Amino acid sequence: MLTKADFQRLRALREKKHREELGQFVVEGPKVVAELLAAGFGFEQVYATAEGAALLPPRQPATAVTAEEMARISHFPTPSPLLAVGRIQRPPLAAGALDRGLTLALDGVQDAGNVGTLLRIADWFALDRVVLSPTCADLFHQKVINASMGSFARVRAHTADLAAALAATTVPVLGCDLSGDDVHTLPALRDAVIVVGREGSGLSEAVKRRVTRFVTIPRFGAAESLNAGVAAAIVCDNLRRALGR
Amino acid sequence: MLTKADFQRLRALREKKHREELGQFVVEGPKVVAELLAAGFGFEQVYATAEGAALLPPRQPATAVTAEEMARISHFPTPSPLLAVGRIQRPPLAAGALDRGLTLALDGVQDAGNVGTLLRIADWFALDRVVLSPTCADLFHQKVINASMGSFARVRAHTADLAAALAATTVPVLGCDLSGDDVHTLPALRDAVIVVGREGSGLSEAVKRRVTRFVTIPRFGAAESLNAGVAAAIVCDNLRRALGR
Repeated sequence: MLTKADFQRLRALREKKHREELGQFVVEGPKVVAELLAAGFGFEQVYATAEGAALLPPRQPATAVTAEEMARISHFPTPSPLLAVGRIQRPPLAAGALDRGLTLALDGVQDAGNVGTLLRIADWFALDRVVLSPTCADLFHQKVINASMGSFARVRAHTADLAAALAATTVPVLGCDLSGDDVHTLPALRDAVIVVGREGSGLSEAVKRRVTRFVTIPRFGAAESLNAGVAAAIVCDNLRRALGR
Repeated sequence: MLTKADFQRLRALREKKHREELGQFVVEGPKVVAELLAAGFGFEQVYATAEGAALLPPRQPATAVTAEEMARISHFPTPSPLLAVGRIQRPPLAAGALDRGLTLALDGVQDAGNVGTLLRIADWFALDRVVLSPTCADLFHQKVINASMGSFARVRAHTADLAAALAATTVPVLGCDLSGDDVHTLPALRDAVIVVGREGSGLSEAVKRRVTRFVTIPRFGAAESLNAGVAAAIVCDNLRRALGR
């Protein structure tokens, strides 16, 4: 049984402004909620209809709601049987964090689906962290979380002034670009940052100035570009191949 | 000035059934229409508002329409200044076509955006053709064309019974799978088919039986899978790398 205050709060979370004020975000959909629970993500609340409750792992606490109540709190046109509320956490990027291990940096990637795909790629290739410029789609946008297919819960992600963070690091900064060194000649780098830019416009000028090596995927045909996720994945695969692990 | 019959026909093209009956499809949006014209795609009609006419290449024939007329024929909530109508062409896959060169085969890829991204990847890596199973998103779906970023006009694409086509070829059939040979050990294949399956369920059983070599992208982290476009792109990059060209 939900109170009037519950309805108000859960509906307010539809807007980014209120999410930031309340420090909470919402995810819906049986698949994504189950993936995040399986990945060990600790939600503050889980709301489940009778149908949804059957989909939860054993001993998962949840508030039972009727289908009518779910329809009132859902952010979707077709309400999901599960809706979960999590705490927005924005861990700062510690000084020197980029100096160790592999980082994927996103420079103005605005499409939420692309940001989610990039988190999934960082997870697949076991990168140590993802850094998003403030001009990227918001990490707590439901489309980002959905597209990450559970990787949202596993990947360490930070939002930070990217050009400043890159200026402060000593490791190679690899910029995905249409005119750079052949990605097949990448050396074995244990510590590096891979930066991908926005679809269409590419890397920003401030970030470009911090790139120490532009990297290009050899093109054989006529397509103008590859999307950010595809480009980042090919660079990661080549880097892992060079590292031999 | 559009006639009543024009309005009826252009609006009817919103539905797949009518597109098939009339043998025509619609694309909208200044970017995609301009990309396809630049790639040499021959539209049957181009409709342009005054704003849209300024975006067309010199000497491109177009029917001038008012903003009000465009709003009535557009398939979008916000009408685009350009709308183009093309002829649906479904060239049959010739016998023996898969025996020469590189083919990307899509087995039940239902997401239109993914199909478009895969066309773009086939274009980038200069594959000789793309074959779609009838269970894929329709090639003439506007989302496919938009996501292909102009590659729709450059890539030779066929819809065909994929398992039957694979049964008839003598070249290696590489199936993207979670348990197969390391993609980094791919030999230099000048003639081959790369098959990617549906998100979630992967390759169909009928297609799996025709795969001669399952190929896997080494995973280092915990993501369950990579999306179809990302997986296909990494296989193409490794194949091109093995070929040394």
